[in-house]
Amino acid sequence: MKVIDFHFDFSSPYSYFASLQIDAVAARVGRACRWRPMLLGPAFQASGNAPLIRQPLKGAYSRHDWQRMARMLGAPYRLPDPFPVGTLAAARAFWWLDSEDPAKARDFAHAVFAAYFAEGRDVSRPEVVAGVGAGLGIAPEALLAAVQDPVWKARLRDETDGAVARGVFGAPFFVVEDEGFWGVDRLPMLELWCTSGGW
Amino acid sequence: MKVIDFHFDFSSPYSYFASLQIDAVAARVGRACRWRPMLLGPAFQASGNAPLIRQPLKGAYSRHDWQRMARMLGAPYRLPDPFPVGTLAAARAFWWLDSEDPAKARDFAHAVFAAYFAEGRDVSRPEVVAGVGAGLGIAPEALLAAVQDPVWKARLRDETDGAVARGVFGAPFFVVEDEGFWGVDRLPMLELWCTSGGW
Repeated sequence: MKVIDFHFDFSSPYSYFASLQIDAVAARVGRACRWRPMLLGPAFQASGNAPLIRQPLKGAYSRHDWQRMARMLGAPYRLPDPFPVGTLAAARAFWWLDSEDPAKARDFAHAVFAAYFAEGRDVSRPEVVAGVGAGLGIAPEALLAAVQDPVWKARLRDETDGAVARGVFGAPFFVVEDEGFWGVDRLPMLELWCTSGGW
Repeated sequence: MKVIDFHFDFSSPYSYFASLQIDAVAARVGRACRWRPMLLGPAFQASGNAPLIRQPLKGAYSRHDWQRMARMLGAPYRLPDPFPVGTLAAARAFWWLDSEDPAKARDFAHAVFAAYFAEGRDVSRPEVVAGVGAGLGIAPEALLAAVQDPVWKARLRDETDGAVARGVFGAPFFVVEDEGFWGVDRLPMLELWCTSGGW
């Protein structure tokens, strides 16, 4: 089965909005969707980019746009504080879960996004991430151990490096057969690309 | 009649793609569309932004994306050389024309975009802009005089300053009743906003 790669960072509001839609898009076009959390920091470094909220004019626009988009989608949302945050713990925990049960990892990803953007919980803190996992029946000690495990540290580093190497400079970023689509606004084009076979 | 403000720079490929669609959007939602060329340079300075093509990773993505979008829209396109260019002359000429005949100014704007992005003519050169105008029956000497006229120099400066003051940091940028929409990708959201009355 052909796949859609969904590259994202747990601290990205547009990734959150994409996370609420991408599986439905994939289902409509008959593809699997591979959820791939990464760290945006290195991608920003490689591309000379910076978090939206720290940019003059664009920061104010984004702040407003996130609220507007949330209302459009009917998605619970508030700008978390602190924002943005480092998402090492959540992303490492994801990759650990994914290695054993991809469906569980996806549930976990949805729960992390909701904890951060709907409930305002600080998902940069490993114990908060463990609490999110506990809500899904994941043992907190096992999750916290995975977050410190060199295997999952390396997995996330490789994932991030690999994303940047394939041209990912922001999030969400979708890839189908080496064709990249940046931003939640590109979901319609991505869908058209998949159904038409490209152009 | 309510309006859609269409802020753009003649050197912006995404503005070109928007220029091919915005009047149809405006017609569908029963609004007038006000075409408002500006200079992106000061907006980039104010927002800490830079031309896409000069940004690592994003530059390569954009180059590819412009071709892909042109094919999707069935629009003639090739990346001009030189690119990007300063569009002082074209924008001043637009504002001069607009003061006398807005429909003519719009025809001129379409012709400038086509000259640059379909035919690869260097529209940074006043004599090229005058040639574009001549194709529409505009006297070249009058156009070249307007380009050097302090009135139209000031008009463009005020237009650009005013755009930045209302939060325009890139192009195309649409505004309806102080609600801003950045990017050609936002045309569907803009249309929904207009038909629904906002949310």
